[in-house]
Amino acid sequence: MMQMRNPPMKMENSFEYPDIPTEELPKVDNADDLKKLPLEDLPKLAENIRRTLISSLAKTGGHLGPNLGVVELSIALHRIFNTPDDKFVFDVSHQGYVHKMLTGRWDQIHTIRTYEGLNGFLLRSESEHDCYGAGHAGTAVSAALGMASARDVLGKDDHVVAVAGDAAFTCGPTFEALNNIAETTKRFILVLNDNEWSIDRNVGAIAKYFHALQTSSTYSHIHEKAADFVEKLVGKSARNIAQRVERGAKNLLFPNVLFEKFGIHYYGPIDGHDLDLLVKTFDFLKDQEEPVILHIITEKGRGYEPAKANPMKFHGLGPYKTETGETPAGGTPTFSQLYGEHLGKFAIEDEKIVAVTAAMPSGTGLVGFQKQVPERYYDVGIAEEHAALFACGQAVQGLKPFLTIYSTFFQRAYDMAVHDIGIQNLPVRLCMDRAGLSGDDGPTHHGLFDIGYMRHIPNWVFMQPKDEDEFIDMLWTMANYDDGPIAIRYPRGAGMGVEPKAEPQILEIGKAEVVEDGTDIALFGLGHLYEVAVETKSRLEEMGYSVALINPRWIKPLDASCIEEFAKKCPVVMTFEDHVLHNGFGAAVIEHLHDAGIDTRVERIGWPDEFIEHGRVDILREKHGITADAAVEKALRNLPKKEQALAG
Amino acid sequence: MMQMRNPPMKMENSFEYPDIPTEELPKVDNADDLKKLPLEDLPKLAENIRRTLISSLAKTGGHLGPNLGVVELSIALHRIFNTPDDKFVFDVSHQGYVHKMLTGRWDQIHTIRTYEGLNGFLLRSESEHDCYGAGHAGTAVSAALGMASARDVLGKDDHVVAVAGDAAFTCGPTFEALNNIAETTKRFILVLNDNEWSIDRNVGAIAKYFHALQTSSTYSHIHEKAADFVEKLVGKSARNIAQRVERGAKNLLFPNVLFEKFGIHYYGPIDGHDLDLLVKTFDFLKDQEEPVILHIITEKGRGYEPAKANPMKFHGLGPYKTETGETPAGGTPTFSQLYGEHLGKFAIEDEKIVAVTAAMPSGTGLVGFQKQVPERYYDVGIAEEHAALFACGQAVQGLKPFLTIYSTFFQRAYDMAVHDIGIQNLPVRLCMDRAGLSGDDGPTHHGLFDIGYMRHIPNWVFMQPKDEDEFIDMLWTMANYDDGPIAIRYPRGAGMGVEPKAEPQILEIGKAEVVEDGTDIALFGLGHLYEVAVETKSRLEEMGYSVALINPRWIKPLDASCIEEFAKKCPVVMTFEDHVLHNGFGAAVIEHLHDAGIDTRVERIGWPDEFIEHGRVDILREKHGITADAAVEKALRNLPKKEQALAG
Repeated sequence: MMQMRNPPMKMENSFEYPDIPTEELPKVDNADDLKKLPLEDLPKLAENIRRTLISSLAKTGGHLGPNLGVVELSIALHRIFNTPDDKFVFDVSHQGYVHKMLTGRWDQIHTIRTYEGLNGFLLRSESEHDCYGAGHAGTAVSAALGMASARDVLGKDDHVVAVAGDAAFTCGPTFEALNNIAETTKRFILVLNDNEWSIDRNVGAIAKYFHALQTSSTYSHIHEKAADFVEKLVGKSARNIAQRVERGAKNLLFPNVLFEKFGIHYYGPIDGHDLDLLVKTFDFLKDQEEPVILHIITEKGRGYEPAKANPMKFHGLGPYKTETGETPAGGTPTFSQLYGEHLGKFAIEDEKIVAVTAAMPSGTGLVGFQKQVPERYYDVGIAEEHAALFACGQAVQGLKPFLTIYSTFFQRAYDMAVHDIGIQNLPVRLCMDRAGLSGDDGPTHHGLFDIGYMRHIPNWVFMQPKDEDEFIDMLWTMANYDDGPIAIRYPRGAGMGVEPKAEPQILEIGKAEVVEDGTDIALFGLGHLYEVAVETKSRLEEMGYSVALINPRWIKPLDASCIEEFAKKCPVVMTFEDHVLHNGFGAAVIEHLHDAGIDTRVERIGWPDEFIEHGRVDILREKHGITADAAVEKALRNLPKKEQALAG
Repeated sequence: MMQMRNPPMKMENSFEYPDIPTEELPKVDNADDLKKLPLEDLPKLAENIRRTLISSLAKTGGHLGPNLGVVELSIALHRIFNTPDDKFVFDVSHQGYVHKMLTGRWDQIHTIRTYEGLNGFLLRSESEHDCYGAGHAGTAVSAALGMASARDVLGKDDHVVAVAGDAAFTCGPTFEALNNIAETTKRFILVLNDNEWSIDRNVGAIAKYFHALQTSSTYSHIHEKAADFVEKLVGKSARNIAQRVERGAKNLLFPNVLFEKFGIHYYGPIDGHDLDLLVKTFDFLKDQEEPVILHIITEKGRGYEPAKANPMKFHGLGPYKTETGETPAGGTPTFSQLYGEHLGKFAIEDEKIVAVTAAMPSGTGLVGFQKQVPERYYDVGIAEEHAALFACGQAVQGLKPFLTIYSTFFQRAYDMAVHDIGIQNLPVRLCMDRAGLSGDDGPTHHGLFDIGYMRHIPNWVFMQPKDEDEFIDMLWTMANYDDGPIAIRYPRGAGMGVEPKAEPQILEIGKAEVVEDGTDIALFGLGHLYEVAVETKSRLEEMGYSVALINPRWIKPLDASCIEEFAKKCPVVMTFEDHVLHNGFGAAVIEHLHDAGIDTRVERIGWPDEFIEHGRVDILREKHGITADAAVEKALRNLPKKEQALAG
């Protein structure tokens, strides 16, 4: 789940965060020390963690709301269980900051999501306590079940605890896993961390179901009941405690048939901020010889008024003012914002346009569409496969579905790109936001593979705009293209700031834009790397070279005649792409020229065959040679020396 | 899903199919005529359809069992609804033969699955009555929901009926769709065709749940109740009928909370072979202004003893003897059979080996593994995403999971290949059966894209064996490789018949096998196209050329030094692959040589950028130039003429 780069709304809240020195609060940075802390000090520890998170993330940004919601849960888990022998599998794992603090990383939490600092998600290479990393939703139950089955095969007795938010239950893989739990193992703990929010508010029947549980009269008394219940437990023997916890938990039990149908014993819902109750409940659950689900109710942003008041914004955000939660006002509109706004405009004119998102209305900018044409807006939850298939069904009926998904999340619907959209040649419009490097979210969120996974699928047309104006032209072109599937990739954040013209124009499919002619080298700057090509051009021109500049626009079909023309005219062709080189745009150019029997040297700027870490985009581009400097150097290796260059 | 090429078991049944002339039975080949047929003739029509299917598929092969199970359902649907205005969306759609017969294709049913004949699944390009094609499971509910939402947007009033088997409910996308039905539309009919079998017997909690419904004492009386119920209906007005059907259906209703939780009104289970009841029930359901699910119980293979006795075999099979259901004895063992047998042997020696399949124990040959080490065998249902994640969890714990999935179905788990296996560098062993052209199943089942979608994912090692012996060596190499993810692709059916040696040998990662040196042209024959390279070599040698023959083995990492060596030595390099050319093995060779500054001509044999139709492999290879003839022609274009060639 991605933070919004330029959150569209500002806090009006005048909340002031009280300035209590954290030095007076207990701090532990490993689970052994946590286990030694007196039980009554745990709430103070929780307070310290919250204060540290709020002040630290104010500088780095990050997933504040979700982490404030799981402070007590994380403490209770580490109080009872022992990582790395026991395994905690956090779904999405953006709520793993507290876990990181409690496993030796408290003092690095201020580096989170910065280059060479802590990753914003769990990462196996970061700590032995991070048994499973994830940035996409719905993987935890399956992966944890695999660990439990392996433990059984190996005859070990460690515990496996999966922690999944309610949003994970809109997600296919979670259901596939639920369907297999009872047959696979007898020891499995699933914590349903229920806060009614995924990134934006949850949708679908399951969300309604959880909501009904939460708002029922029984739940409204949970806190009092839980308090009574814990009070009664004090001073009893361990065995008695266990029995009483069981009885107590069952008192709170709803007839939760959904889970019981899957053969999983259901406990809850209980207050996820009640440390005593959580500790005792886990102590009880760890001895159960059957799969169990514990349903806890938590509050996103707990303990920080601005985050509670605006859970969507504080799900994940950039730096903010601690006292008020204010974030800097947005600058240039992002591609996402332009997307929602302009697609909405088109839809007002064209009643066949519909838009589908998988739980990312803010991230993809579709809120802007929803405001204009709410009746043709569909948020299906974190369910990319369904989203794609749903769009297919709409296309069958003659609508023009705009399927709007981040590049990295569309991997979930890859089969549909081939089997449903591709084979049937359905005019689904696929809009891939966050294509290219995503920056501080890191490898689980970079969109560096989509050309690789899409280009070989027959029937698809695929493009990328060099700036905002062309982006809107391309969307308009998509709206008017009914011959088959068509996709566009565009980056996170803002572009060059080129304001879209009043009336968009339909672009010719497969026709590149030749911006400037030249004879020494031809630069093909794809999408937002067009900017790097422009800079490379001016540097090479300063050295006296004649540089052609092409905005390729089309990844598929390639503009074959344009590429051939410049490859014949210039001794060197250079491609720029925000994508891995393998199976990328440059590779397609090489392949095409080779088949055409043209041996012109093609130099490529793009990402190497490795997973790229998290960090600021400029730092990572510099490190991996996605810069005009690197491009100029590569070009000079292939170009004859110029007098001006020698003189310079 | 896929038929078994060489089913491992033979029928011992002595059943003789009675020889009643079908001429005496009613026949209709469009829904208008069907609607005119007297109600009492419908069972005779059903009998005719069954007889036609049994005798016709005896020659072509096909999905006999599933189609015999839906004869009455298909008749009832076409009796009540009107395609193409109304939409039937069949999940997987291998059960669409009867629908084809009733929509103008009765007389072509004998051509099914043959080249230029009817496709074995629904196909939009085949008929306007096929609104949605599918060969993969779990897409119908989502796609149908998209159609229903579009109908609502467009203000139309046509009906959308999704027909899904119980197996679709092990499948994530189906749950994602269920979660969205109630919020999306008020008019939606979902038929749950429950026969307890997907391809092999269903697994998981949902299957158990359905089984419990079927075997309960209430169900055992369904047939009688249904009969009474229909009897009572005779002679009443339409409105009364509707009300009574509702009441009747509700009498049969189980408290089916699973569906009701999703906000879908549940009716059933009813006997799916009772035509009267089906017709009246659909007549009632079509007027409901809320989403409904009708649960029908059917029998796979209904009306044909051999198919009832062996539903797994008759799910899909090749030609058989009508009288007994016997199929020709299997010849050379398939790659799948060898896989299960040898992996089982390895697993007996290595206790860390486990095997995971997604509902394909027979198709992938894992039944052979299961027989040897049942305690380390996991069938998770049609749930490829969960299968991959589950394998990740097992790898985290130090096991050696062999994730066994057809190439085309692994598309479902593509995100896991990147986000879970790739980024975390987990030693998951991915075994992709049915890689390359799959033949008569057609485009939904060909495995022609896996190099394209896998090669650019960092950390993966990827290979393909030239024959059965090397296949076992490669599996053994995988068993002994713990450094990260490793994948293998291998074809449907049997190979060259090279028997595996007694003790497998570990292959060096990234090292190609140079079979023969040569100086005019170097042939790189990947996997089972090695055979085509061998033939090409002998043809070119006859013409006097010096031909090098290389078995590349490794798709990633490429054997760079081998490729460079031969590209420097020979003026022409030729690659052979059972894969599309875009982003394929040959494209990787071109890319590598270009980067290395070697301009040697690379000619490629592989599939074009289009979806390949169904048909016999030899016919399709001939049509698309995947032959030694085509290779020789391409080679000669680039080679200097030889005296022998001129003389010959």
